[in-house]
Amino acid sequence: MNTIDQLQIDKLNDDEKNIIEQVLRGFESKRQGKSTSYVSAMYAMEHEFDGEVLKLTMPISPIVYNSLGIMHGGITATAIDTAMGTLANKIVQPHKAAVTSQLNLHYTAPIQEGSIHAYAKVIHQGSKSMVIEGWVETSDGKRAAHATGSFFMIERK
Amino acid sequence: MNTIDQLQIDKLNDDEKNIIEQVLRGFESKRQGKSTSYVSAMYAMEHEFDGEVLKLTMPISPIVYNSLGIMHGGITATAIDTAMGTLANKIVQPHKAAVTSQLNLHYTAPIQEGSIHAYAKVIHQGSKSMVIEGWVETSDGKRAAHATGSFFMIERK
Amino acid sequence: MNTIDQLQIDKLNDDEKNIIEQVLRGFESKRQGKSTSYVSAMYAMEHEFDGEVLKLTMPISPIVYNSLGIMHGGITATAIDTAMGTLANKIVQPHKAAVTSQLNLHYTAPIQEGSIHAYAKVIHQGSKSMVIEGWVETSDGKRAAHATGSFFMIERK
Amino acid sequence: MNTIDQLQIDKLNDDEKNIIEQVLRGFESKRQGKSTSYVSAMYAMEHEFDGEVLKLTMPISPIVYNSLGIMHGGITATAIDTAMGTLANKIVQPHKAAVTSQLNLHYTAPIQEGSIHAYAKVIHQGSKSMVIEGWVETSDGKRAAHATGSFFMIERK
Repeated sequence: MNTIDQLQIDKLNDDEKNIIEQVLRGFESKRQGKSTSYVSAMYAMEHEFDGEVLKLTMPISPIVYNSLGIMHGGITATAIDTAMGTLANKIVQPHKAAVTSQLNLHYTAPIQEGSIHAYAKVIHQGSKSMVIEGWVETSDGKRAAHATGSFFMIERK
Repeated sequence: MNTIDQLQIDKLNDDEKNIIEQVLRGFESKRQGKSTSYVSAMYAMEHEFDGEVLKLTMPISPIVYNSLGIMHGGITATAIDTAMGTLANKIVQPHKAAVTSQLNLHYTAPIQEGSIHAYAKVIHQGSKSMVIEGWVETSDGKRAAHATGSFFMIERK
Repeated sequence: MNTIDQLQIDKLNDDEKNIIEQVLRGFESKRQGKSTSYVSAMYAMEHEFDGEVLKLTMPISPIVYNSLGIMHGGITATAIDTAMGTLANKIVQPHKAAVTSQLNLHYTAPIQEGSIHAYAKVIHQGSKSMVIEGWVETSDGKRAAHATGSFFMIERK
Repeated sequence: MNTIDQLQIDKLNDDEKNIIEQVLRGFESKRQGKSTSYVSAMYAMEHEFDGEVLKLTMPISPIVYNSLGIMHGGITATAIDTAMGTLANKIVQPHKAAVTSQLNLHYTAPIQEGSIHAYAKVIHQGSKSMVIEGWVETSDGKRAAHATGSFFMIERK
């Protein structure tokens, strides 16, 4: 606990305070079972599913920026992979889990503010693997990324 | 500041305390100029470059887990994209920046503990774009992911 | 001409005769301007465009088989890349041409007989590049492949 | 046989004669067991394997051109997929076959003449799937394409 005791909150700038607050709210969300991982909790991801398309929403702030001040391509991949993986795990058989085996992403526009929606939809469902497509839209409806992914079904431990 | 004041540190479990400590150390690293983004700071990424291969090191803990308790494929993508992007931006002309336009990843083994190394190496350097390969190895030398990416060179603002 | 004079047509088996006939019909189609390359001519590709989706049709025979007796993944890629490239070159500015810079394919079912349809549709159209999605369906409507591709626009010589 | 009887060889231009000759030589190569498919036969592909890297050689002529007069991206994919698939099938267990499940290609330079070499090398060999990398070099040693592919192992019928 020493490090946190010594964290000298006064030293934090506004971006850092906002990040800490977002992370703490994420912990609370995970405790309540709304998030199933620290990754989705920390990035404040929420999702809904209409039976066909999974829609994930995520706020954009400096916590996701790369060194150029736009959303990091890896975090965009994280949003898409989470949407795809959440969808895949909703439709596999109960005793199985789906894991990403391949992910392909095209980045088509920079993301800087507001929030994004990441969508996932099944392209092909086989007995051993699935192909899922995903895409990201900015608050104003612009497509910022498009992806396809392969998922293996494995026995859930 | 209220949220942080009320964060009730006693409520945090050990994983959460470790995450907060890692994030705070990341902030310090960013203030000192060792990290150029909150993403690389929060994940405690460090890199070295021998003139050909860029090597990024990152510790593995619950902060990077997905809901199955293994490293989230998106965070693996973040490590690789950071290694590739750091390399790309080291070799572009001074007034330009390199941004990811396409990223392709194969996941070959789960990652659970220790630390990972993400490597990046140029495959093709053109006047407008680059192709870079990247891969991730676990602490015990197993290849956990292999990737290729395309980067566009843009004018730096 | 000697080789062809000596080709000993009696030596050809039925598959080989069919292939030669298909190639010769392709030459005729190219002479008439219906095909713009020997590749599309030899594989007897035909296309139609409704203003949004380009649809390419191609017969399946031993000319496209791999050593396992199913359609070669590279020829499936050829059908998809032709559909995508034909679409891209229909929508670029008149003095420009579009060339494939990246192609990503998922194979979801084997192809053995009948004919296939390869479809292409624009995902993103930028000033320098485009992202296009493509997919292949068998005669009985099964999705056999799904792809995305990036195309660069270059000055037409 | 009627179509071939009527093929009016005098009508063929030089490119077409060369293509027919190449196809006929391919048939002969397949009869002799040097080629295992019409695809590799028609494109006159030959390969050698040193135990680690598979090297495929293929002549470049109008038979592989797209409508821009450069090698068709799909035929480049065919060369790479053939190299990768040949390698994969050399190293699977005797009663199994390897089929492409995913293919990702970056095109880095146009190909117009001479011959190409397509190389394939294993990145990861698992029990159910493999990841293989492949690349194409022109006669003068320039890298024209770089690829990665996933292969599933299936029971050989």
